[in-house]
Amino acid sequence: MLDLLRGLRGITATPGRGCTRLAYAHFEDQAHDYLWERLRSISDLRRIEDAAGNTFIVPTSAAEDGSPVVLVGSHLDTVIEGGWLDGALGVAAGMYVLESKSRAGRADPHLGLVIFRDEEGVRFSTGLFGSKVFAGECTATDLDMRDSDGTSVRDVVPDPDGCSRYRPPVNAAAFLECHIEQGQRLIGSDARVGVVSGIVGIRRFELEAKGMANHAGTTDMRRRVDALVPVAEIVARCPSLVEDLDDAVITCGWLQVDPGAPNIVPGRAVATIEIRGKDDATLDGIERRLHDLVSSVQPAVSGGRCAEVGLKSLVSVAPNPTDATLSDLLVEVLDDRGLAYKRLASMAGHDTQQVARRCPSAMFFIPSIAGVSHNPDEDSHEEDILLAGELMSAWADRCVAECS
Amino acid sequence: MLDLLRGLRGITATPGRGCTRLAYAHFEDQAHDYLWERLRSISDLRRIEDAAGNTFIVPTSAAEDGSPVVLVGSHLDTVIEGGWLDGALGVAAGMYVLESKSRAGRADPHLGLVIFRDEEGVRFSTGLFGSKVFAGECTATDLDMRDSDGTSVRDVVPDPDGCSRYRPPVNAAAFLECHIEQGQRLIGSDARVGVVSGIVGIRRFELEAKGMANHAGTTDMRRRVDALVPVAEIVARCPSLVEDLDDAVITCGWLQVDPGAPNIVPGRAVATIEIRGKDDATLDGIERRLHDLVSSVQPAVSGGRCAEVGLKSLVSVAPNPTDATLSDLLVEVLDDRGLAYKRLASMAGHDTQQVARRCPSAMFFIPSIAGVSHNPDEDSHEEDILLAGELMSAWADRCVAECS
Repeated sequence: MLDLLRGLRGITATPGRGCTRLAYAHFEDQAHDYLWERLRSISDLRRIEDAAGNTFIVPTSAAEDGSPVVLVGSHLDTVIEGGWLDGALGVAAGMYVLESKSRAGRADPHLGLVIFRDEEGVRFSTGLFGSKVFAGECTATDLDMRDSDGTSVRDVVPDPDGCSRYRPPVNAAAFLECHIEQGQRLIGSDARVGVVSGIVGIRRFELEAKGMANHAGTTDMRRRVDALVPVAEIVARCPSLVEDLDDAVITCGWLQVDPGAPNIVPGRAVATIEIRGKDDATLDGIERRLHDLVSSVQPAVSGGRCAEVGLKSLVSVAPNPTDATLSDLLVEVLDDRGLAYKRLASMAGHDTQQVARRCPSAMFFIPSIAGVSHNPDEDSHEEDILLAGELMSAWADRCVAECS
Repeated sequence: MLDLLRGLRGITATPGRGCTRLAYAHFEDQAHDYLWERLRSISDLRRIEDAAGNTFIVPTSAAEDGSPVVLVGSHLDTVIEGGWLDGALGVAAGMYVLESKSRAGRADPHLGLVIFRDEEGVRFSTGLFGSKVFAGECTATDLDMRDSDGTSVRDVVPDPDGCSRYRPPVNAAAFLECHIEQGQRLIGSDARVGVVSGIVGIRRFELEAKGMANHAGTTDMRRRVDALVPVAEIVARCPSLVEDLDDAVITCGWLQVDPGAPNIVPGRAVATIEIRGKDDATLDGIERRLHDLVSSVQPAVSGGRCAEVGLKSLVSVAPNPTDATLSDLLVEVLDDRGLAYKRLASMAGHDTQQVARRCPSAMFFIPSIAGVSHNPDEDSHEEDILLAGELMSAWADRCVAECS
């Protein structure tokens, strides 16, 4: 697995500065081809490219007769100057499963590899695009998204119409993914592996205050309608909204002040507030607290005036539980080997959440060193990387047995 | 006075959208010329342009023999789409004094008009530039300031060297300015006039927090080093620092978050904090409270980590008291007429604060309707505008008598 991952690391637009393989750009194509070049000598496999450019490498029999296959895999696109494992680990683990079985002369007619396109969504502000197509959820809006050069998704996918009216090229019985954790919940615990109970839901809001821009000298404090002060107060108090909750975060990552001059009282302030939670009840609870916080904001100065503050929903992604049966099969594999694990929600989005709409899907995490990801320093211990391949192989065997 | 002000209002780059006469641009030049065209028929006056392009219109005798003159005036440059009275009122009041005395056949050999350049500082981010030159305080840095097209102050002033090694073209005995208040302290009081006790000092700071940019999903709340949360907390609590003080304001008018994406924990947040106060003791007190506030900031989540927060001084402008004797002469004028007044600090900068370094200087305010300024809606009641001319005339008479 390590030579494969190192080979993929070399396929990047930015040698020496982490991995850059943007969606549908040359280096992503090259990475897909690289894997097929390694696998094509295994004679009973066939490469299929779907309407979105997702790569399926499946037994010829399954490609021809539509017999069910358990798919393992992930994605090969990266953020700009990202790490070498995000996405690539899951693909390399899938490759390892296929290659090792083939070398051992026991190639499985019900096992295939899938490599999704454009998981990161950096280039087109899409995200999980390839797996969304596979899930049959692609919309015209997705296809019309454009990159900074004005190129649309529609311009780069092999078959835009086929994305909208999607027919999966294989009969997927299950999808198994492994990934680096990208966080720090496994580090410092005894667990070698995180069994993903589900992918968190995300709700993103726009917090906007409308005040009155005015001279910062001549407008006395009681006559101001400062738009930034109430927004700042809300942002400062957001962390307290999730302090008593597990697997829940709240973030203000973007804030803008208008007109934005040191000597002008802000007339408008806008911020994004993003919440993530493991289930709808958690998300509903945080959202309620956020609305309460927004409506509780008082004028900054006694007798003063308060800007009008509003909260508007921008994005809502439902939480996706993983398949319980598949997860239990993984736990059996871990128990057999006496490996400690932890059940946790994935705080980031992954292809698994889209594929779950098409077929039962599950995933596991290995630890990320220092929790670093989307960064050239992203790394995992060698023994954890190798373990990922072994676990995926054993898990896939059980799934094939279960699904057949 | 009103026809003069209406004439000036017509000299703008943006007819119908307030007044735009940027410093050293065509419309500012044209406004200076317009006044001289009106005054040149008064035969014993001479126009002098100094190294900065400030216009002095003084009795020929004073221009030739260096006898002392009391200068009245203000500036004619404006912000973009500003009002018709900011600056123009003080110049028009000065014109009114000269014209009315001349018409009455009692032109005063010790009275002159001055029109300063570039008070607003919009074009070059300078501010009070012409009066700063007159005060002998112009630096190379001032001359090197550039506008958005790359043109420097040095490129547009008549004599850059003369700005640095300045010799005033007239022997100024005193400077009297009147201006609209641009605030709301006179409205709702009984006072017709504000006698300016001094111009507030301004201290501007950069508040910077350095945290660690990270994934807003996978980075749990206790492991975050969020740069925005502590900055937001400080900004939200700033108004409380001046709540018990008169003539003091605090403003955060600009704030930036890096990298600035909804799904990334802020790695850096920077804001400007500006304080204004009537004297050094007030400013020192607020600054001390601000430092205490910055050092009191705690992690947002119990057991969490706090970004490193620093406060750096950017700009410091000392408060400028006006001349007490000149102000008392104005109070005598007001008392004689039975006009109510209020002594107050000017919360905005004015040419008076620079000229005070050269000669005794004082100023008064008339009310601004609704406190609106730097806006096409800027206005004052006609009776107040006319009163400004009358008061300036009577005040100038007393000053000439006092100074001679």
